[in-house]
This record gives sequence, structure tokens and C-alpha cells, in this order.
Amino acid sequence: MIVILKQNAQAEQVDRLKAFLGQMGLQIHFSQGENSTIMGLVGDTSRVDPDLIASLDAVEDVRRIQEPYKSANRKFHPADTVVDCGAGVKLGGGSFQFIAGPCSVESEEQVVAVAKAVKAAGATLLRGGAFKPRTSPYAFQGLHGEGIRLLLLARQETGMPIVTELMDLSHLPLFEDVDVIQIGARNMQNFELLKEVGKLHKPILLKRGLANTIQEWLMSAEYIMAGGNAQVILCERGIRTYETATRNTLDLSAVPVLHEKTHLPVIVDPSHATGFSRLVKPMALAAAACGADGLMIEVHNDPKRALCDGPQSLTPEEFADVARRVQLVRTAI
Amino acid sequence: MIVILKQNAQAEQVDRLKAFLGQMGLQIHFSQGENSTIMGLVGDTSRVDPDLIASLDAVEDVRRIQEPYKSANRKFHPADTVVDCGAGVKLGGGSFQFIAGPCSVESEEQVVAVAKAVKAAGATLLRGGAFKPRTSPYAFQGLHGEGIRLLLLARQETGMPIVTELMDLSHLPLFEDVDVIQIGARNMQNFELLKEVGKLHKPILLKRGLANTIQEWLMSAEYIMAGGNAQVILCERGIRTYETATRNTLDLSAVPVLHEKTHLPVIVDPSHATGFSRLVKPMALAAAACGADGLMIEVHNDPKRALCDGPQSLTPEEFADVARRVQLVRTAI
Amino acid sequence: MIVILKQNAQAEQVDRLKAFLGQMGLQIHFSQGENSTIMGLVGDTSRVDPDLIASLDAVEDVRRIQEPYKSANRKFHPADTVVDCGAGVKLGGGSFQFIAGPCSVESEEQVVAVAKAVKAAGATLLRGGAFKPRTSPYAFQGLHGEGIRLLLLARQETGMPIVTELMDLSHLPLFEDVDVIQIGARNMQNFELLKEVGKLHKPILLKRGLANTIQEWLMSAEYIMAGGNAQVILCERGIRTYETATRNTLDLSAVPVLHEKTHLPVIVDPSHATGFSRLVKPMALAAAACGADGLMIEVHNDPKRALCDGPQSLTPEEFADVARRVQLVRTAI
Amino acid sequence: MIVILKQNAQAEQVDRLKAFLGQMGLQIHFSQGENSTIMGLVGDTSRVDPDLIASLDAVEDVRRIQEPYKSANRKFHPADTVVDCGAGVKLGGGSFQFIAGPCSVESEEQVVAVAKAVKAAGATLLRGGAFKPRTSPYAFQGLHGEGIRLLLLARQETGMPIVTELMDLSHLPLFEDVDVIQIGARNMQNFELLKEVGKLHKPILLKRGLANTIQEWLMSAEYIMAGGNAQVILCERGIRTYETATRNTLDLSAVPVLHEKTHLPVIVDPSHATGFSRLVKPMALAAAACGADGLMIEVHNDPKRALCDGPQSLTPEEFADVARRVQLVRTAI
Repeated sequence: MIVILKQNAQAEQVDRLKAFLGQMGLQIHFSQGENSTIMGLVGDTSRVDPDLIASLDAVEDVRRIQEPYKSANRKFHPADTVVDCGAGVKLGGGSFQFIAGPCSVESEEQVVAVAKAVKAAGATLLRGGAFKPRTSPYAFQGLHGEGIRLLLLARQETGMPIVTELMDLSHLPLFEDVDVIQIGARNMQNFELLKEVGKLHKPILLKRGLANTIQEWLMSAEYIMAGGNAQVILCERGIRTYETATRNTLDLSAVPVLHEKTHLPVIVDPSHATGFSRLVKPMALAAAACGADGLMIEVHNDPKRALCDGPQSLTPEEFADVARRVQLVRTAI
Repeated sequence: MIVILKQNAQAEQVDRLKAFLGQMGLQIHFSQGENSTIMGLVGDTSRVDPDLIASLDAVEDVRRIQEPYKSANRKFHPADTVVDCGAGVKLGGGSFQFIAGPCSVESEEQVVAVAKAVKAAGATLLRGGAFKPRTSPYAFQGLHGEGIRLLLLARQETGMPIVTELMDLSHLPLFEDVDVIQIGARNMQNFELLKEVGKLHKPILLKRGLANTIQEWLMSAEYIMAGGNAQVILCERGIRTYETATRNTLDLSAVPVLHEKTHLPVIVDPSHATGFSRLVKPMALAAAACGADGLMIEVHNDPKRALCDGPQSLTPEEFADVARRVQLVRTAI
Repeated sequence: MIVILKQNAQAEQVDRLKAFLGQMGLQIHFSQGENSTIMGLVGDTSRVDPDLIASLDAVEDVRRIQEPYKSANRKFHPADTVVDCGAGVKLGGGSFQFIAGPCSVESEEQVVAVAKAVKAAGATLLRGGAFKPRTSPYAFQGLHGEGIRLLLLARQETGMPIVTELMDLSHLPLFEDVDVIQIGARNMQNFELLKEVGKLHKPILLKRGLANTIQEWLMSAEYIMAGGNAQVILCERGIRTYETATRNTLDLSAVPVLHEKTHLPVIVDPSHATGFSRLVKPMALAAAACGADGLMIEVHNDPKRALCDGPQSLTPEEFADVARRVQLVRTAI
Repeated sequence: MIVILKQNAQAEQVDRLKAFLGQMGLQIHFSQGENSTIMGLVGDTSRVDPDLIASLDAVEDVRRIQEPYKSANRKFHPADTVVDCGAGVKLGGGSFQFIAGPCSVESEEQVVAVAKAVKAAGATLLRGGAFKPRTSPYAFQGLHGEGIRLLLLARQETGMPIVTELMDLSHLPLFEDVDVIQIGARNMQNFELLKEVGKLHKPILLKRGLANTIQEWLMSAEYIMAGGNAQVILCERGIRTYETATRNTLDLSAVPVLHEKTHLPVIVDPSHATGFSRLVKPMALAAAACGADGLMIEVHNDPKRALCDGPQSLTPEEFADVARRVQLVRTAI
């Protein structure tokens, strides 16, 4: 960590700062420039609050040199984390998994049919929403406990582990048999929720927040890992920009950036990112081409009754085509 | 709501859509253009999911004509909502309130001293963090229940109602005596939390999310109001943009925009928005000038031990100066 | 185009608006709702200024139904445009071209060496900056006319057509022998420049502005095409977002979106978008996977003297590897 | 400037970097940490290209300590610049000026009528567009030379200096008698244009680009000043964000930030920023409250024929009310 002192910093203020930093066990190296003095802090700076230091009268600016995350940092854990999702499905470390299923769980018939169809097409995990975060209080919010029961039924029928979103701690008892718990984009910085799932012994799929940097995302992974749960999967799902042609802007460069910075697996959700089913295929292929460890794709079972499905869902046939071509791309790279 | 059909929409698809919309009690007006056909939907469209309609094969685009919020909409409730914060403090409807206090509650001595100082300078509500959302799991997270106890002590000493942030439903029992519950920016779309505080009989101060539109913000207010709690205060606190000279970009034009769209009071937090104490005064004056109903400002008690305060906190003297000038600006406009 | 009238619009105002729209040759269809009246305008609305209509007292909102671009619109020109870049190099319509070369042209030795190396590795067009837009007036701004002379020398040596950036109309005489003129991101809305290159008979490579929507980009292409020059190549090069891990955020979903909306070819520049050479390969593969018609990649000739090259440049060997894998990905999809 | 070396940097690479920096006359201070080595560069780093250094194999990151602008920097020129706009109108240094007039110049009658009306209401400079940057090639682009002639006529009638936008160098001869030349948002990084107006002896009003940081804006001012023209006025006019309720997001905190960083005067254009006339008044008052040195406001002459004016224009009466209240706010602060 670098602390840049003001030109007119008073000696007394600088001494107080030195004493404070010394108490935290840090060594200080001074660099005297023409217009400013720089203090280089050596030691474990992960507990130093840069905002606090920056607030001091004597300080012009503070810059971090090292990443504030440790457990998630590839520097300290060079080997890829491989997350065991159950039923032998491993995510990360060179494998590639397809998570597919309906946006919302609606009925036993629907979820079992989709589950069988996506399994046949190459999916290895089943997704489906039981608790749905909706912008409007008047919109359908999911089948809740009944939705999870139907997902477990579909798992029984197909053998696929299930992934579903947890929106609030109070619902946690319903998730006991769920294989992978998803934390949605809007909850990426719901720190109480992160702490609690950090105590569980099951994989957590952590979606990126709509306006969160890669570093903030890794700090949220760090929250989970600090609790003892190292089974974290990161899921890029688009960020908010000024562009309105797509629902969000899929930040695919986050995939190779994350592979540098962290050992955690990274998957991509092209369905929610783009908001249009016809953009799912090109963006799924692109995600595979830039090194994603998996894809999360919405699939609906019956194009005839499309009224009940989101605009971003593929048919099982379209999903099968995507899955096949993704494998070809992976072979190519 | 306007539904734009594709040029090549099949009659059968259009008929299915007409039947579906008819079942929802909507009338349909057709407008035949050269390159497209437009359906105007007349009736209560608040329960129609535009994404769902847009997903149909026959549909090119869907545009909302009316706002999806009702309880929060000024069209249906022209008169300003005045929120009673306790102890005779009313927010909205032409009055102006100063909410001031420390970033975090640290000790009885600190919070009582700050409370007395800000009251003397014109503050009418005391703020202070007991539960602190922090990006890093290793940073100080607040005194929790003890923090709330200290705030209540300060209320006893000064008579000022208190405002403090609720981060998770499980902490709700500790907030029984709190006057105004704050929902932080990161929880603006924590829908389970919104639903639950919608059942309470106390004012809710709802901060804008870092990447949320004004419409999404009003939909979150709608979540609270749909539960029966109409005592909602909106607080603009900066949005995330590419500019890095300030922590966030304070969107002051949101103040007059909200005054048009909603009857709820709107306050501004220049401390968190800018991240620098020296920017608090100009932005507080600007907020008053464009019609805000109040300000929320961080104040620390002792510049000598500034190490424990955020870079965005004013001294009580600085706060008194801001409060005095804000009143002058309000008289001017 | 849809015009939504205010609830309290006066009959006189509405009549004046009807007369105004009638004079423009538009038919008007009225749709009377409970809370608003909607006017559907039928006819050629491309010359109607929506901002102007929206400014009227009687009008609540205006929504476009049709795209404001015509020449660039795929609806009116379904077949892919194939741009002839000279020397038999065709861009668009299913082919794939690699544009490669140094960031800045520095010397005959450098540009000829890079040109030969990238040609051997599969490049079909040579890029190189003679006029360099630099944020700082104190930074190197390019060799100008001499730079173009060196590019033409490299073309003579290798047979590759050249692409280089035009920053101002006054430099146009120097570009007479240039094969493809690049309009940079910062000039995407330099409308006088667009009009002038619209009069030329050579291909224009139009980069997307840092904060421009896809629609604005197509409107800038429309400026060029309105002048008579239909040889426009679009180049996605990243947009400005709050994320700082990459220089800009490469918006790859723009590629399939553009292929829907326009018949013009779309290429991707992963070098400038990411700002890091190690991210060029994954993003180049991703661009090919989602359907780009070509890539523009920075290559420097001598890693030993990397001091003179940008952080985003590949070595010729790295470029050859990228080019080879891109072809594999293209075969896969 | 701080250079952070990689953990595994090779001694040979570091030596080459040291030699390179030494040649530039910089001293180097080393700080050896546990996980990284930091080089502090002391001396004139304004000509060092941080991107170039960051591209080296041995380097992990580069951070600037000092601002890259010199002429515009308040550190080196503490006193406010006061720009003489002609006819005794001075901008900056504690005064406050109103620039008002129509969006586009349309006729002698219109521009003279508006000029007289805004002068009576307190305006000291007349604005009006002769060259209009329009997103669409099919939209009205201004009266060009004839528009400037009409503005000069209005100046003759009222004595007010005129401000109008220059879009291209080739139009410069027409601007000989113009008092203040405006560089629009889309041309903020048109570096050739900046260089050329840097050679003139008249004030330049430099609007902020839609997606440009405050630092980039100051670098563009530096371009003008580096040519010898120190008469630069900065104009905040909104930045592009994801919010769509206003045309752009007016970044008022830029005003006090700029007053810290630079000695140049800063004005605000609430008309273009918000895009709605009803938001002009509150945002004009807010701009005055946070310390702006002036305002630029669109005024049209005849509400009856509003069809020819933009949605963001005030009537002269509304402008007079804004001007009067702005003065009250300025007295208050």
C-alpha cells in the first residue's frame, strides 16, 4: 500500500500516522519527491482501511498495491479449484459443464420434461427458479418450497444435481437437499447472506452484481470463503451500461481476467445477460472460446405455449445445437 | 401498453396473443402501418409482463405507456406524503430536515457527543451505523445490538429520533425501538427485506441502489407500500459511473424528477455520494437548491482522532455552517 | 412512431399537432385509453424529430417504432454487404479477414518487418497509425505524412492493402493512396468528417465511440452512406463502463445484434478494447465464435525493444497462434 | 509515478527499465515488500507514458501520483483565471455570467427577439447554434454562415458578445468575429480542432464529452493551453449513464472538484444535460449553489410556435425567473 502525503502535511500529523501504522505491524519506506512524499507500507495491509487513511488531513491519496482478497487469490493458491457439484459433476480445472433448465419451476410435468430434454442434449446440472427476484411486487414470485420439491423430483428422475437461487436466510431450511445454491446478482453484496452460506458445506454459485467490479465480486467470494466454504463458482451475467439493445452488456473479458486473478471456476449466463434467445447461441460459443468453465442457459419445454416462458429461453432442440457447437469450439481452442 | 407486431407475424400467432390479452381483460386497438402493425392495449396493464409478451414469435417489441408503480405514483396521489419520524419531526410536504451523525456508532461518549453537537447545529434526526455493510469481510462491521442501544441512549439524551440501517431480516427484533429504518443501497432490491419492512408501522428510508434507475427505485418503494407501509423516504446517494474523481456520481436531477413522478419525500446524502468531506458543503447546498426535502450528513465528533472516522465526515462546526447556509438557500428559492 | 398525449391535453394543442403532422404527410390513428390517448403515426417518420414532438405541452412521450437509419438497415437491404478492400481482399458476406500491424508506424524497417511477419501468419490487411489521437498534448502523435509513405512502402513489399486513421479533413490529401480509411472512436460523431468520407470511393472502417449506442453507431454509418459511400466496415472496440480491470469493456453481443440490424460487415479490435496483450487471444477467439467478420490486432516486431510498443501488442508468433486458432473456431461454428 | 514490479521480474529486465528511466532524467527509489517491489520515480514524469511502462514484462502495474496536466493545474497557478469574453463581460474569479439564447439560429427576427429578451432578463452573453451536430444525417443541421451573420446582427442590436459552436476547422474563417468559440461535447477529444483553437486569441468554451472523465477533460483544456491560448471556459453538460429519465446525468459534483483541480472557470448547461425545460430551473439553482461561475441556458422566443424549439428551452419569462432566483442563491452562499 502506498500513502501519498500532501505537500503541506504537518510533521505532527505525519508522526501520528506513522505511529498508527507501526501499531498495525507495518514497516514504512519513505520516498521524497519534488512535489510529494510517498510512504510505502510493507507487511500485511489487508486489514488497513484505505478510506480511513485517505481521510487524514496529511494524506493526499492512498493506493493499494496488493489485492484485498486472499482466499480467492490465485497468487496464494495457484491450482484451479474444482467444485464438486454432486453426482460426479465437477466444475473447474479444465472440465466444462452445462447448467440448463427453465427460468421458473411451474409444474412437475414442466420441470421433469425440461430436465430430461436438457440431459439428453448434454446438460449435467439442472437449473430452475423456485424463488424469483422480480422488480415488481405484482409479478409472479415463484412456487417457493413447492418449486424446490419439484426440482428434487426432477433430480430423482434424471440424476442431475440441481442449482436454484436463495434470496433470504429465512428460506435456508428449504435448501437442505439442494446441490448448488445460487446467490443472485442483486444479492452479490448481501453480506449477511454471504456469511451464512460461507458456513455451509455445499457449492455456492455467485452471480456478478449488475454494477459490481471484478474486485468487488472477488471480495464477495472472499466473504463466503472466509466462513470456511471454498466451493465457490463465479457466474458472469452481464453488467449495466448505457447500451439498451441488450438487457445488459455481457462482459466476456471478465472470464480471462478472472482466470488470472483467481483459482475459482468461472461460468457464463448468456440468457440473462442478453435477454434474447436468439443471442444465446453466439454468446455461448464466445464464452466457450474465451475459456469459460461452463454455461448456464435457460431452456423451456414447449414452444407452443411460449407465453409462460421468458424471452431468453431456448427450446431443447436449440439448446442441443448450442451444446454440440460449444464442444466443437472447445476442441478448437 | 403498445405491442409492435412483426411484419411476418402469422395470423394464428396473433390470434393466440389476442385471446391471451383478452383473458386479462384488456381491449386491443389495432394500428396498421406500412412496415408494422401496432396493438394498443387499453385497461389495467400493471399485471402484464412486458418481457413475456416480447418473447412471442409474433412480437417485435413492447413499450409501456404507463408507469408500473401505483401506490408511489403522484398521478394517483397528487398530495405530498409527509412522513412522521417521531418526536414531531415531519419529513416532506415543504419542511426540511437534517439527519446527521457518525458513520459508525463506536461508544456512548462518541455518539452522545455527536448527537448533542448536531442537534445544537440544527439536526432533527440522529443517524449512526450499528450494522455496517463492508466490501471486505475483514473490515469492521459495526457494534450491532450494542450500537442500537447506544443510539437509543443518545435519543434519550437529546430527544432526537434515530435512523439506522437494517441489513437482514434476522436482525429485525433489535430494531423495535428504532424510529426510522434505513434500507441501504446494496439492499434496494433485496425484495424479501422490502416485503417485511412493508408490514411495519414505522418510516423506511430507502436509499437508491448504485446501478438502479429511478423507475426501479420507485418499484422498490412500491414493494414496501404494497405491504401496507406508506411511510417511505427516498434517499439519493450517488450512482455508479465511469468517473473516478468522486466515489459515486450524485444524480441531483433525480430530485426534481422524483418530485414529478412520486408524492414521497426525497432527501440527499452528499457524504456517501462524493466520498470527500470537502465536497459535502457544495453538494448539500445544491441539493437544497434543487428542492430536496432533507439532507443526510456524516458528522464526527473529534478531528483530533480522525483516524476512526470516514473521509467523508464533517466536524460539528462544519456541519453547523452547512446547515445555516442550506437555510439561506431555501429562503432564496 | 407513437405519440402519447397528456391526460389534460387541450383540444387546441392537439389540433395544432395534428395539422403539423398532417403537413408532413403522416396519417394518424387514435387509441383512447383510460389514462392516456395514443396517436399512432403511419407513413415516413424518418424526418420527424421525436425531441421536437416531445417538447409540446400536449405530449407526454414519443416512442419510435422504426429504426431511424435506412441505408444501413438490413430490413431494406437483406443481403450482406461485401467490402472490397483492394488486392482481392473482401470483407463481409462470410469471409474472414485479419487486419494486423503496429500501433504506430515508426520506421521503414519496423513497418516492413511487421508487415511481412503478419502476412506470413495469415493477415490480409496491414494496419498502422500515422496520425495518433493522444489524450495528452505532450505524447507522441505519429509520423503523419511520413508514416503514410512508410505504410505504402510496406504495401509495395507485401501486396497487402493498408488501413490507417484519418483524424481531420485537412489531412485528406495525404490519404489518396490509402486503401481503407479508419475513423477512430473519438471521431465517430465528428459529423463533418463523416460527411466528407461519405463522398469518397474507398472503404471506411468506422470504430464505435466509447459511449455510443449501437443505434448511434448505425446513424454514423448512415451519415457516410447518405453521401453515397456504401463501403462501411463497423469495428467494435470496447465501451466505457465502471469496470477498471480492462481498459474498456468489449461488447461482443454487439456483433450478433449488428448482424440482425444491418447488412454491413462487423469486425472486432480486442487489442484496444482490453488494453492487455494477454487478453487479446481469448477475446479474438470469442469474437470469431460469435460471428465477427474479421479482427484488427496490434502486432509489434521485436519483443526485445518492447519499450516502444503498446501494452496491447502481440509478437508475430503470438499473432500467428491466434490466427491459426481463430480459423479452427470458425470451422467449429 | 509508482512502478510496481512483478514478483518474478528478471534482473536483466529491471536493469533495462532502470536505464530507460534514468535516460529520462528520473531518480528511482526502491521499496522492497514481501510480495512485490515498488519503484518510486522522482522528477518530471509528465512525459512518461504509463501505458508503455505497464506493457513491460517486468511490470505489474503503474500508478500516477501527479496530474498529467500542467497549464490547467491549480497547483501551479493558484489564482482563478478570469476570461474576458468581450464587451466587458468577465467569466471566472467570483463573477457570474448567464449565457442564453436559442438552440438554433433560425431567422433575424427570432434571434434578435430572443437576444433582447434574455438581455433584459439578465443574460450577458448570447448563445445560438449556426452549425448543429445532429445524430441523424436527415435532421436540420443549422444555417451555417448565415446563422453566424444573424448572431452578429443580434450582437449589434444588443451589445452582447456571442458564443457559437465550431464543428470543423474548415469553418474557422466564418468565426473571425465570433467572441467565444464553443467546442461541443462530441469534439472534446477532436485533438486537431483543439490544437488549432489553441492558436487563436479568443476564449474557448470547452464542453465535457459524454463519456469523459474530469481528467481527460482537463487534458483537452491542456491541448488548447499548450498552443498558447489560456482563455478556456469549462462547461459541464451531463454524462452518459444507464439512467434514462433524463437525457444525460448532470454531474454537479464536477463543479467543486474542478475548482480544486484547476484555475479555469466552470459553467453548467442544465438545458442539454436534462433535456427537459421543466428541469432547467432546479438544476440551474443547484449549479449556482455548488459554485458554478455561470450558466448556459436555452431560451426560445415564442411559446405559441413551440414546434420549432427544443424540449429543453425556456420562455424568456421563465429564464428571467431562473436568473433572479440564481442571484438570490448566490447571495445566500
